[in-house]
Amino acid sequence: MSIGKRQWAIAEGFLPDPGPHADDPELRSHETACILNANERDVVLVITVFFRDRDTAGPYRIQIPARRTLHLRFDQLIDPEPIPRNTDYACVIEADQPVVIQHTRLDARPGERALITTMAYAEEK
Amino acid sequence: MSIGKRQWAIAEGFLPDPGPHADDPELRSHETACILNANERDVVLVITVFFRDRDTAGPYRIQIPARRTLHLRFDQLIDPEPIPRNTDYACVIEADQPVVIQHTRLDARPGERALITTMAYAEEK
Amino acid sequence: MSIGKRQWAIAEGFLPDPGPHADDPELRSHETACILNANERDVVLVITVFFRDRDTAGPYRIQIPARRTLHLRFDQLIDPEPIPRNTDYACVIEADQPVVIQHTRLDARPGERALITTMAYAEEK
Amino acid sequence: MSIGKRQWAIAEGFLPDPGPHADDPELRSHETACILNANERDVVLVITVFFRDRDTAGPYRIQIPARRTLHLRFDQLIDPEPIPRNTDYACVIEADQPVVIQHTRLDARPGERALITTMAYAEEK
Repeated sequence: MSIGKRQWAIAEGFLPDPGPHADDPELRSHETACILNANERDVVLVITVFFRDRDTAGPYRIQIPARRTLHLRFDQLIDPEPIPRNTDYACVIEADQPVVIQHTRLDARPGERALITTMAYAEEK
Repeated sequence: MSIGKRQWAIAEGFLPDPGPHADDPELRSHETACILNANERDVVLVITVFFRDRDTAGPYRIQIPARRTLHLRFDQLIDPEPIPRNTDYACVIEADQPVVIQHTRLDARPGERALITTMAYAEEK
Repeated sequence: MSIGKRQWAIAEGFLPDPGPHADDPELRSHETACILNANERDVVLVITVFFRDRDTAGPYRIQIPARRTLHLRFDQLIDPEPIPRNTDYACVIEADQPVVIQHTRLDARPGERALITTMAYAEEK
Repeated sequence: MSIGKRQWAIAEGFLPDPGPHADDPELRSHETACILNANERDVVLVITVFFRDRDTAGPYRIQIPARRTLHLRFDQLIDPEPIPRNTDYACVIEADQPVVIQHTRLDARPGERALITTMAYAEEK
């Protein structure tokens, strides 16, 4: 089974302050790229991160096994560098096979607690 | 009237804890695939569920009458097996006629109450 | 200027209880199809509403002037019949010129207050 | 690297009252078009704003450097005129190179605090 595209973009990236549950990875503020690899083979992804006033970060390399999903947290990307909090960013994700990517953010700051999601923007390479 | 595609994917699947209204199906945490069958004939759908670290679940089979909509709750899928809570998943939905699918989650956990929605990712089979 | 498609679908329709601000049209629960008519001519739209266990409602007819937007509230559709609250529905919107449609719901019920939005599903007729 | 389209539309535009944090640009109500320019060259964008019962506003002109992202706030558009609050609007954004645009709103009004996002509607010019 194969579904998806090989090039994706998320234009609205922002890691808010962790909020009152900073020690709980599930409840502190975070942003996720939910990636579905429905293929019969492992997929390799390369992420490039764009900012407002500095050069890009990355490439970040991710591998997902065949017929698995990975809900990738941006606050756990550390190699080659972590993504700063409270900073506007965007990203392009390129895969060597078709995948489907959905973007989700939990904003746990008091007074703004919210959960958002949307399909990322897809394009055939 | 016919509108839609025959292959869809939702990459961001997650059934949170039921929350404080666990006995109320409307207000406890749940996730829904809202499916529109605008065709003049019944449609048959087959759902495959993907996880991070185990084999897929399914196939789940669903039928929707002609010119009807079904807001399918993932916490009511039980055959061949229920979908575990607090577990990242994704799904592919294949239909034998064009349908339109929108993904919605109500997260009723205290401190994170939220409602999210997005169109699922569509592809022609 | 022209942008959009002539056939759209919203699969996730649901008008919740009005909530504590029932007399305030802006703050009571409602659902909206935000429609952009960027064309140089008026556009005519026909809406068909689908349910889980009854025949369709409609057609509802709407006109939008040239180069205007209309944020159409589903709780203000009354001819040929109002859309019932607390009932799952979906809709197909057909236009005689290209339009862009985005779906938004304000859920003002206590314990579930939320605002959701997504682009509707578009298809060329 | 190049990804995106050159014509985009956001149908659901609405700048709510600023809310209780009117002096804090991050926490007062606002609406954003998050734009990714992954190209090797600067991009120029032209925004036209549509209303329910008056002529369009604009054109607003924006420039984004090569390989940068801009999270453009609609409450900071002032030339040729500011966008009024509490008024339904929509917009078309045209670019001279491919970009990706995601629409986000923070609604900070008491009793309706919410964060929404969706990919904008894309079309090749």
